[in-house]
Amino acid sequence: MAKDNFVEQIADIETDFPQWYTDVVVKTKLVDYGPVKGTMVIRPYGYAIWENIQKEMDRRFKALGIENAYFPLLIPMSFMTKEAEHVEGFAPEVAVVTHAGGEKLAEPLCIRPTSETIIGSMYSKWIQSYRDLPVLMNQWANVMRWEKTTRPFLRTSEFLWQEGHTVHASEDEAMDETLKMLAVYEEFARTCLAMPVLTGRKTEKEKFAGAVATFGMEAMMHDGKSLQAGTTHYLGQNFAKAFDIRFLDKDGTLKYGYTTSFGVSTRLIGAIIMTHGDARGLVMPPVVAPVQAVIVPIASKKEGVMEACRALKEKLAAAGIRVVLDDSENSPGWKFNEWEMKGVPVRIELGPRDLEAGKCLLFRRDTLEKTECALDGAEQSVRTLLSQISENMYDRAKARMDSRIVRAGSLDELLAGVEGGNFVRAGWCGCRECEDKVKEFAQATARVLDGEKTSDTCVVCGKKAEHTVIFARAY
Amino acid sequence: MAKDNFVEQIADIETDFPQWYTDVVVKTKLVDYGPVKGTMVIRPYGYAIWENIQKEMDRRFKALGIENAYFPLLIPMSFMTKEAEHVEGFAPEVAVVTHAGGEKLAEPLCIRPTSETIIGSMYSKWIQSYRDLPVLMNQWANVMRWEKTTRPFLRTSEFLWQEGHTVHASEDEAMDETLKMLAVYEEFARTCLAMPVLTGRKTEKEKFAGAVATFGMEAMMHDGKSLQAGTTHYLGQNFAKAFDIRFLDKDGTLKYGYTTSFGVSTRLIGAIIMTHGDARGLVMPPVVAPVQAVIVPIASKKEGVMEACRALKEKLAAAGIRVVLDDSENSPGWKFNEWEMKGVPVRIELGPRDLEAGKCLLFRRDTLEKTECALDGAEQSVRTLLSQISENMYDRAKARMDSRIVRAGSLDELLAGVEGGNFVRAGWCGCRECEDKVKEFAQATARVLDGEKTSDTCVVCGKKAEHTVIFARAY
Repeated sequence: MAKDNFVEQIADIETDFPQWYTDVVVKTKLVDYGPVKGTMVIRPYGYAIWENIQKEMDRRFKALGIENAYFPLLIPMSFMTKEAEHVEGFAPEVAVVTHAGGEKLAEPLCIRPTSETIIGSMYSKWIQSYRDLPVLMNQWANVMRWEKTTRPFLRTSEFLWQEGHTVHASEDEAMDETLKMLAVYEEFARTCLAMPVLTGRKTEKEKFAGAVATFGMEAMMHDGKSLQAGTTHYLGQNFAKAFDIRFLDKDGTLKYGYTTSFGVSTRLIGAIIMTHGDARGLVMPPVVAPVQAVIVPIASKKEGVMEACRALKEKLAAAGIRVVLDDSENSPGWKFNEWEMKGVPVRIELGPRDLEAGKCLLFRRDTLEKTECALDGAEQSVRTLLSQISENMYDRAKARMDSRIVRAGSLDELLAGVEGGNFVRAGWCGCRECEDKVKEFAQATARVLDGEKTSDTCVVCGKKAEHTVIFARAY
Repeated sequence: MAKDNFVEQIADIETDFPQWYTDVVVKTKLVDYGPVKGTMVIRPYGYAIWENIQKEMDRRFKALGIENAYFPLLIPMSFMTKEAEHVEGFAPEVAVVTHAGGEKLAEPLCIRPTSETIIGSMYSKWIQSYRDLPVLMNQWANVMRWEKTTRPFLRTSEFLWQEGHTVHASEDEAMDETLKMLAVYEEFARTCLAMPVLTGRKTEKEKFAGAVATFGMEAMMHDGKSLQAGTTHYLGQNFAKAFDIRFLDKDGTLKYGYTTSFGVSTRLIGAIIMTHGDARGLVMPPVVAPVQAVIVPIASKKEGVMEACRALKEKLAAAGIRVVLDDSENSPGWKFNEWEMKGVPVRIELGPRDLEAGKCLLFRRDTLEKTECALDGAEQSVRTLLSQISENMYDRAKARMDSRIVRAGSLDELLAGVEGGNFVRAGWCGCRECEDKVKEFAQATARVLDGEKTSDTCVVCGKKAEHTVIFARAY
């Protein structure tokens, strides 16, 4: 059967999740492997998701007064070394340009792994007075981090992202910005990706190289592993001092600014796939789905069917729904399977009998349920259904995540927890040694510090806990 | 006077146009120089123009069925050498990555100067059958060409662009695509940039490295020099053969595809500046202007003025006009000059007397004329004025260009023509030697071949002319 052929193309999601992921991203044409090891080609179906992410995120940024700009790809190597922790963190991963225009360069240039340094050097030039603050900028760009082990969207040598970079006159204002952007990311993940996340501060070990404090949002993937889906950084005066970002304050004295940075990347596409996907393939959240509804004509040769399908398509498109009419020569069954694998939220079936009854069938990808719908006013029904799907996908993922956060009082319990595909909440004394021991013993890392006060003891050493931590294995 | 101070910041456009350009791009904060020689930082006011260009162009592409994708930045050096003319043209300009992740790479990688090669390698993998054709893709990306002499927007080592890449089953279809995209560019330049262009085929000397034929659009800058503002390339089977892009045709035989490519870049921002700018600075075409209207309160402390300005701003914004209310503490005169330098198409002045009369003053940047306008329905008046400005800017630039295309029957006339800041139309026999002689004698190049049939003689050798050519000095 056609259906079986399709499903056979994809590895079983429960028994071989890594292979399922690889099969799905390649077979739905989201992505392909580039000729250079570790690189990816984002194909139109994948890039359309990114365009929708950009549109939604960019609207939020602009509403907050954040302006887009574009800074150079190549950074002088000497810039990287100005902030000690920063160079330590990123130098091992950079790609280096040594020759250009047929000549050896006097100073090697690195391809940006992130742009704090080059943007800092420009801010230093642009900022003179407290009147120039705050500076709120963002760029949509490609960055490069040379990684040993790569997987499409999750970890590739080059990826696309947005990086926000702000400068403020005070510590409080910069910290507020850092937390505000974390909240923007959380709301975006919930509303646009139907993706629940845990947010919180990162440990010293897990923070951004050069930050005073990093905050992250972590999402639970199908296999119970965590994926860092976005981070915001309070950089204090570290980069301001390294790049001499100073302003004349109201009191007439020259002060260093306080900076922040924040970013999300094409990794979010991997997060969508691994949060919502099922045995049949992708399940796309409606807000960022490249195609929100597909119309499949049934018995398309019968009189009036194709005309009705085309009219319906026009009506939905006019209502702002991203709709495709599949008028290819494949059988309806083949089309069903293909669009299910591609995760299109709503399938609309329309045949002669439906037409006669003035209705069509709506199939929703998230629950696999079918309902009837009057052709008259179908655009409203589809729009409502898309909202319901979005909410249901979020609720389902949230319930699943919540049910898979377990407590551990010992390393053995922690190990059992993560091996069972859970996030593990446990006390931690705050020392690096205990954090390393968790990694060694359970291959789990501290994802975020949990807000709640704790009277716990450290899951490793048994001393009084300083923090409650969410530990998990992570992508 | 404030006004004089402002104008003094910018060199005189008539006597020192290069300095005028540098002054204007830096002082209006469109751009700044990056730390690496030849690189630029596109600041928010400049990047907003690019975002508007992208939005308008992308809409046109999508309406034509062109899909966006993203291909890797780094291209194996061996790819570049597969098409003989291509490597000859681009190898001298590439930036080369030799080290990454702390190791020397087995094969050096070049940063894309353009992506025909890497995209060709992927198309070869994706295209099997005639059913897969045509393939119509585009990417918005950064590219790098190491240039000796650079100027912001016009020629920088890194720039942003779009590059379309298509594959077709036949020569005719590919050539049609090449010419269709040239027409899209021309319409875009006219409608969105108020910029008249001459379009036509390029000579062999001036064509893209690896193309069978290149078509370009050329715009006349304030100093009479030409700027290549966009190109489309018919690549024949050159890249299809180099990268083995083959498809099984309906007749059951395996055939090479025919490919095209086309691109416009951030250079367009330079073209806008140098087409429309005047002694006071920028004159922004309304469709892509970051700010379309600025409201300047007069006697802003007087009762009701700021409230009225804010209400007007809301009304204009709700009507989809990109509007700014300048409520800074600067004097109205200072504001006038600043926003004039920034080229905002419409300035709205609103003071107590206007308010009493229920009107405001509209100042248009293109003609420097003022008109009164009722506050009631101001959004409609501003919208109409923006359209008029756009049309007037085009008509004015078109009349200017048309009046500065002169004929030449000899090399001396040609030299006099370009020295007078004109485009020169002249006969050409078609040989490279004569083309080189024009360059040597008059520092002018063949911009495009003119469509009209000619009974002319070659401006250099006096033999029968094969083509009529537009010669000009160029950026």
